[in-house]
Amino acid sequence: MSGWVAVAGLGPGAEDLVTPEVRAALAEATDVVGYIPYVARVAPRAGLRLHASDNRVELDRALHALEMAREGRRVVIVSSGDPGVFAMASAVFERLETAPDFAGTEIRILPGITAMLAAAARAGAPLGHDFCAINLSDNLKPFDLVEHRLRHAARGDFAMAFYNPRSKSRPHQFARVLEVLREECGPDRLIIFARAVSTPDEALQVVTLAEAAPEMADMRTVVLVGNSQTRRVGDWVYTPRGTSVAGAAG
Amino acid sequence: MSGWVAVAGLGPGAEDLVTPEVRAALAEATDVVGYIPYVARVAPRAGLRLHASDNRVELDRALHALEMAREGRRVVIVSSGDPGVFAMASAVFERLETAPDFAGTEIRILPGITAMLAAAARAGAPLGHDFCAINLSDNLKPFDLVEHRLRHAARGDFAMAFYNPRSKSRPHQFARVLEVLREECGPDRLIIFARAVSTPDEALQVVTLAEAAPEMADMRTVVLVGNSQTRRVGDWVYTPRGTSVAGAAG
Repeated sequence: MSGWVAVAGLGPGAEDLVTPEVRAALAEATDVVGYIPYVARVAPRAGLRLHASDNRVELDRALHALEMAREGRRVVIVSSGDPGVFAMASAVFERLETAPDFAGTEIRILPGITAMLAAAARAGAPLGHDFCAINLSDNLKPFDLVEHRLRHAARGDFAMAFYNPRSKSRPHQFARVLEVLREECGPDRLIIFARAVSTPDEALQVVTLAEAAPEMADMRTVVLVGNSQTRRVGDWVYTPRGTSVAGAAG
Repeated sequence: MSGWVAVAGLGPGAEDLVTPEVRAALAEATDVVGYIPYVARVAPRAGLRLHASDNRVELDRALHALEMAREGRRVVIVSSGDPGVFAMASAVFERLETAPDFAGTEIRILPGITAMLAAAARAGAPLGHDFCAINLSDNLKPFDLVEHRLRHAARGDFAMAFYNPRSKSRPHQFARVLEVLREECGPDRLIIFARAVSTPDEALQVVTLAEAAPEMADMRTVVLVGNSQTRRVGDWVYTPRGTSVAGAAG
């Protein structure tokens, strides 16, 4: 029997946001590898080996999966959300690039509901027009590049979604992000803090940039920022499908 | 019995990319409304009324759904992909804003697998780092704003995803988009034309900007453009999770 690797997105947390495609791959798998809290979401069963590993060992994890597939095992690498958005898919190809002997391995990427779209759905439609997704972590890129991209996103009048906004190891950077946003977008721009969407810990907070505080975000939060046209209607926040050119002048 | 409106994403086409949450809403619905090809994806059953309408009548469709919900009906508005990404969710809130008598209506937005992420999964991980999503249609915004955003996205060294790249009514604009991209990103940047992903008509084409031609896209195509670090490994295209600052200088 020939092995394979599937890099699968488990969605933001709720079971009813896991696609049937991912469910089917998990049912066929002999091995599941991934970051501890994501592997914990996979129900144990006879014949399925679970390999949970810590954060920041993505390349080792990718190699382990490729090695097991070469031995004929059917391996699912689990990511939260979508595997192609700040998750394991890139790590697998990065590993493959430096290990060409795995070039023949069967690999499939199975999309999932990514956190920003689950969060947007809860808030209304804040990403209803052109938008950017930015990973605020500087583990793998300099913070200057984050700031550079923030300014271009703001000047292009994009709505924005931020992943990994804040962690214990870098508490000050998100304060700087809010500062840059206030400079570029003014105090009245709407910002949404969406924590653990679709889980029992879900919490949503909508404020203006003037009201926003760094403590409103943690590592389980996705942050969404509206464009110049984004507004409230009742409890909802939405960005119109069309837009005036006014926003483009900034 | 009290009515409701659910704005649901059917994903890019394949049945196994429809979430159980959306499936459950369709099972409870009394009415389904949407653009003709999307309503055609919903299986008819006794007690379910299907209301298919043409493109560009989004606000009328939203009002129709809200009116039916007020009469106690359970209405699913179907979108392709994710309802919050260039789809029906914004139209519903736009309609709600000018029809405050519907303020008490129960509304839920149910996320789906959006086209760019399904396309990225097929190609590898081209959106594996910071990226933008841009709707190239100028139905609701001036083309100048499209160009303005393209330049900021390129100068921020974002990967990009384009929805609605080309239609019969505006055949020349996508040629201009490619021109702008060549100016900003050079001839070697990778570009992916992903047509009808996850359907029987699926076709994927990976070329450089120098090789790209407007005819490679139509209205069923999502176009993905890499950032300065995006590269091939075997048949795959991926963007590394980290990036040098080199790309940021442009």
